[in-house]
Amino acid sequence: MDIKKLVKKEVSSLRAYNAREIPCRIKLDANESPYGFNRALRVAAGISTNRYPDPEAGELKKVLAKDLGIRQDMLLQGNGSDELIYYLISTFGGPVLYPTPTFSMYGIIAQALGEKKIEIALDSELDLDIGKILPAIKKERPKLIFLSSPNNPTGNCFSTGRILEIIESSRGIVIVDEAYQPFSSEKGFLPLLKDYRNLVIMRTLSKIGLAALRLGYLIAAPEIIAEVNKVRLPFNVNSLSQAIAVSALREKKQLIAHIKAICSERDLLFRDMRKIEGLTLFPTEANFILFKVNDADRVYSALLKKGILVRNLSETVKDCLRVTVGTPAENKAFLKALRQAGI
Amino acid sequence: MDIKKLVKKEVSSLRAYNAREIPCRIKLDANESPYGFNRALRVAAGISTNRYPDPEAGELKKVLAKDLGIRQDMLLQGNGSDELIYYLISTFGGPVLYPTPTFSMYGIIAQALGEKKIEIALDSELDLDIGKILPAIKKERPKLIFLSSPNNPTGNCFSTGRILEIIESSRGIVIVDEAYQPFSSEKGFLPLLKDYRNLVIMRTLSKIGLAALRLGYLIAAPEIIAEVNKVRLPFNVNSLSQAIAVSALREKKQLIAHIKAICSERDLLFRDMRKIEGLTLFPTEANFILFKVNDADRVYSALLKKGILVRNLSETVKDCLRVTVGTPAENKAFLKALRQAGI
Repeated sequence: MDIKKLVKKEVSSLRAYNAREIPCRIKLDANESPYGFNRALRVAAGISTNRYPDPEAGELKKVLAKDLGIRQDMLLQGNGSDELIYYLISTFGGPVLYPTPTFSMYGIIAQALGEKKIEIALDSELDLDIGKILPAIKKERPKLIFLSSPNNPTGNCFSTGRILEIIESSRGIVIVDEAYQPFSSEKGFLPLLKDYRNLVIMRTLSKIGLAALRLGYLIAAPEIIAEVNKVRLPFNVNSLSQAIAVSALREKKQLIAHIKAICSERDLLFRDMRKIEGLTLFPTEANFILFKVNDADRVYSALLKKGILVRNLSETVKDCLRVTVGTPAENKAFLKALRQAGI
Repeated sequence: MDIKKLVKKEVSSLRAYNAREIPCRIKLDANESPYGFNRALRVAAGISTNRYPDPEAGELKKVLAKDLGIRQDMLLQGNGSDELIYYLISTFGGPVLYPTPTFSMYGIIAQALGEKKIEIALDSELDLDIGKILPAIKKERPKLIFLSSPNNPTGNCFSTGRILEIIESSRGIVIVDEAYQPFSSEKGFLPLLKDYRNLVIMRTLSKIGLAALRLGYLIAAPEIIAEVNKVRLPFNVNSLSQAIAVSALREKKQLIAHIKAICSERDLLFRDMRKIEGLTLFPTEANFILFKVNDADRVYSALLKKGILVRNLSETVKDCLRVTVGTPAENKAFLKALRQAGI
């Protein structure tokens, strides 16, 4: 029996996500927050390990709905945004359209589910290439369009006007992935939700100090949520993640203080990186900075030799590296190592 | 825009899992263990909430592999078995064959993923109806066959000979779901894994005291694991579940003591239920007992009035209820309420 032959064609040609752990002293590769909410872990002690989680995540939805000023039936919880992408594609099918470069999971999951992918390169300003996207929408009628704004790995927000043009032109669902929105000076799309029935907003707690929990959520019209909820596994978010997230979200002040600290550190880091000759910096509204060097592989290795792990994007964006904003001390060490590495 | 029309046909006709919480004093409806491992929660305090989980679940696999006497590359971790069913069907596609009645998620997930379902009723002894399954395999060539043994909700193990006949006749993958195997007097299929390349064993920690964590795993040949791993979301099992599971699994003695206690309580409960006139009992190798009464809806309500929640299966198995084995005190209260309810 040849197992390979039994596997769906689209899956067989996928490569498993490379998640090899690279030993390092300072980890600035995964857009994690440098600040945890470890106080929130206290509530773990009160969990009954033998009982299934609340399948509706009622308490979590209550806290989120109140915070966002929306109805609870406009929310859907996921085991990270990744799982919500899976559910959206399961619910609506393809084609799935997204710009490139962007968050890799849109394409990986579309392929895992055997759906057609339509990839459209960003324009030279790293904004949405509306001149190519609108005709593609007309011709291919994508069921789903994923727009990460601020975009990973470029860091910029797409222009609101272009996103709205896409939403208005599409007969499918448009998901604005706001994973990095908390770090942005822009307001995000929540206020526009009432005007567009095909708009879905995706958010996550992973970038704001709670990556360990795996908690993402969708915000959309109740009729969209109800459909996606049909393919949701009943107990997809476990008891610990629910309880700890609720506890952390109740410490809103702390949460905002961390975000503010990261943003001001980002601005300082950006300013200092700009002084390094030969380095091209891309404007950022996220908790990371994309930058271009002469030889990304060489600089990546030089940084790693000093114990500093960044993301090498050279396969996706020529000669680019991505550094996550860390603590002041971490950023200082990164800057020092970068200067020593030479560009 | 009509959202309903955008949704995949198969999904649109699905109903969301009814997970309404029913208030009760004694919860015997969900095949949970009455005994938790709350001591294992201590390790939660050591988690860094801001860091992503280990995508490979290395420590967990190490502990499981050692315990099972297998190689680590024969294991795949899931956010509960539910997620592993999703992954298996994503990887291999359909048709998906399973007997009925059985665990409902095989059919729900196959439908969510738009794959053909082949349902074959159990025979009058609640065993696999080999006379119908073998011709169906020949005709329909299912890519996946799910066999829950011990079976939920019937409680019995299917005959090993019949399962082997199915494995030998199938050119697809056969998954033996051993969620309830720890409570069975039979050995399970692990020793047979080396003889059958298309055999996959699925297990879970949910029935043995850790339902809150959502942790299931597959055991299979490395070449099967490698393919399914391609559709696995990189961070599907969160940091807390990994750490707490490792901690609990290291307390093997405690784990086994709980299982033994549940099995002997089950045998006592079975013996006592047998004395109740008019009640039909089905033999069980699991942590629950299926029983038939004259009017399941009435008995269900009568029990609930006393604060005791069991599972009403009357929609699936005519006039049957399913009771999970609880603590001695819970079982006593259940028996008393059942006697008072009358059959």
